[in-house]
Amino acid sequence: MTVTAPAGFEAAGIAAGIKRTGALDLALIVNRGPRVHAAAVFTSNRAKANPILWSEQVIRDGVVSAIVLNSGGANCFTGPEGFQVTHRTAEAAASALGIAAGDVLVCSTGLIGDQLDGEVLEEGVLSAAARLTADGGADAARAIMTTDSKPKTVVVEGDGWRIGGIAKGAGMLAPGLATMLVVLTTDADLPSGALDAALREATRVSFDRLDSDGCMSTNDQVTLMASGASGVVPELDAFTAALVDACADLARQLQADAEGASHDIAIEVRGAVTEDDAVEVARSVARNNLFKAAIFGNDPNWGRVLAAIGTTTAPFDPYLVDVSMNGVRVCHAGRPDRPRDQVDLTPRATHVLIELHAGDASATVLTNDLTHDYVHENSAYAS
Amino acid sequence: MTVTAPAGFEAAGIAAGIKRTGALDLALIVNRGPRVHAAAVFTSNRAKANPILWSEQVIRDGVVSAIVLNSGGANCFTGPEGFQVTHRTAEAAASALGIAAGDVLVCSTGLIGDQLDGEVLEEGVLSAAARLTADGGADAARAIMTTDSKPKTVVVEGDGWRIGGIAKGAGMLAPGLATMLVVLTTDADLPSGALDAALREATRVSFDRLDSDGCMSTNDQVTLMASGASGVVPELDAFTAALVDACADLARQLQADAEGASHDIAIEVRGAVTEDDAVEVARSVARNNLFKAAIFGNDPNWGRVLAAIGTTTAPFDPYLVDVSMNGVRVCHAGRPDRPRDQVDLTPRATHVLIELHAGDASATVLTNDLTHDYVHENSAYAS
Repeated sequence: MTVTAPAGFEAAGIAAGIKRTGALDLALIVNRGPRVHAAAVFTSNRAKANPILWSEQVIRDGVVSAIVLNSGGANCFTGPEGFQVTHRTAEAAASALGIAAGDVLVCSTGLIGDQLDGEVLEEGVLSAAARLTADGGADAARAIMTTDSKPKTVVVEGDGWRIGGIAKGAGMLAPGLATMLVVLTTDADLPSGALDAALREATRVSFDRLDSDGCMSTNDQVTLMASGASGVVPELDAFTAALVDACADLARQLQADAEGASHDIAIEVRGAVTEDDAVEVARSVARNNLFKAAIFGNDPNWGRVLAAIGTTTAPFDPYLVDVSMNGVRVCHAGRPDRPRDQVDLTPRATHVLIELHAGDASATVLTNDLTHDYVHENSAYAS
Repeated sequence: MTVTAPAGFEAAGIAAGIKRTGALDLALIVNRGPRVHAAAVFTSNRAKANPILWSEQVIRDGVVSAIVLNSGGANCFTGPEGFQVTHRTAEAAASALGIAAGDVLVCSTGLIGDQLDGEVLEEGVLSAAARLTADGGADAARAIMTTDSKPKTVVVEGDGWRIGGIAKGAGMLAPGLATMLVVLTTDADLPSGALDAALREATRVSFDRLDSDGCMSTNDQVTLMASGASGVVPELDAFTAALVDACADLARQLQADAEGASHDIAIEVRGAVTEDDAVEVARSVARNNLFKAAIFGNDPNWGRVLAAIGTTTAPFDPYLVDVSMNGVRVCHAGRPDRPRDQVDLTPRATHVLIELHAGDASATVLTNDLTHDYVHENSAYAS
């Protein structure tokens, strides 16, 4: 059911012919109301794809009736022609649905620098609009896949309302700058300002802490649409908590499907002065190629952890730090502790605990290891 | 001749038994004067190895008579016992040479978290001191190698004076946190303040712009020692220029020997507002795994270049940027230009030119590609 699990939403996923393989490549998700409130967050990359430039304008009034997503091409660095394709896509949806183009978000994912065919997109949108159903969420989830091996979906039950979601990609880990696209829907009745606050909090502690390979896409977009069809106005805290659950679930699915990865690594930092410090420390490890290659080799190389966190500005004394891997403390107060051969790194799930002993704040960043398959898939894609 | 090319220096490189293989593993370089002036720069990693902690104190007065370097162990995160080993190493050199321990620098390289044997170090230093010769520089260059496939050396001729140098490692690219260690010698007669200024300028535009894998070592040290034995006091500008040449030459040798690399990539940024901006932009590309994997695959994926530079804070418009690879402009004003199949990326030497059209400053950062061999060597080392 995914994005069509909450009342008020219809969706379709079709093969529009953008991908040469004939696979599903275009999704349309429509909010039938009675409310058409929405919020969205976008990539912070200054190199923004055309659909991002378009969608940033659409979301300004907090009103969104539909979203079109295509795989098979990122429509980034494609100039004014590329922007026209995005515009034409939104106009097609507006025409088919009897709504304003300015209430249609557009997302694209695929290779940068390739021009999309506007006619193919337009015909695809019209075709998708004719196939909208209240159980089309599963097809929509498949249609946004690029190198994903499986669709990512989530449903969270609230008290009289629901949140549904679909996602694709894993940060910038997938080849060709494949993108993280997420669409969340809810039949809760909340205004766009509340949706925006909840979405920013949820993405801050979920997708923003998934750092598979440190690369930031030009096309990332996370969208939340609310129909109000449940007639229930939830407490914002309860809604935010459910949205956090939904986003965290999708983030774990993205991590688990990260291309070429053989380990899902949770880097937990405790004892930081602030939560931002904890994130900075965890992220420095998540982005360290030497550490990530060591985990691939099942090597509990804690020296690489300490060398990574030594590059941060977070306040702590490197010579007070403890490091544990999968429950075995291999470094205590900046010195060797239990023998590294006691650490079993053969499971895919890997837990690295870094205790800074500087304060009370903590955070966890999710990442993957650096593997032969990562290099292979990211060197062979476009050539 | 290397570090013994300038007058006033003797060196030795021996097998002290630190490495189990019996390879050369300890170098001693002595400045016989008449001057014993020196300068040094150290890793900016807050997780500093014991020899760094020691050497930072030694260099404070600008007086250095000798430097001991060992491979086979980084002596980092080894606690007070590790610091005592460093101290004992310096005392051994002082005793053998009749100088003060406070005038002896120590450098170590190898795996983090392993304790060095102080007795082995002490005996090694005494043995090396007995074998000092005026042509021992070549052995010293070999004795500091870890996973280097060849020694790195340089000699630059000044006007009546010389600079000699040795180096090992490549940033943090080599496995086990292998370190960049550099020793430069000169028989020019310059005070330590002038040496310090020249060294900081030279490292700023050479080693600091070699970013093989974005990882920062706990043990990096670049040392410059001046004997004054030529009797010539050069102009500081001329000396600095020669030192830049020496450091740039060694940096290129480090890049060319980077582990597992199949491409030596020069990322040149032109048209930046400031030189710092140009470095930031170039470094963002040098640290982008997707770009580095693409180059390994001989794929001129300019979209990954633009996605990388979009994450910087340097002032420029991504949609005015030109990107050329090996002389072929594949992106003009943020749009596709010449076909990517016109780019030949089969040569090891790779040139990426990024024209920002925002100002007049430029800079080049050197890096390597991300290869299967990099992953293999960095995942298999310590296990």
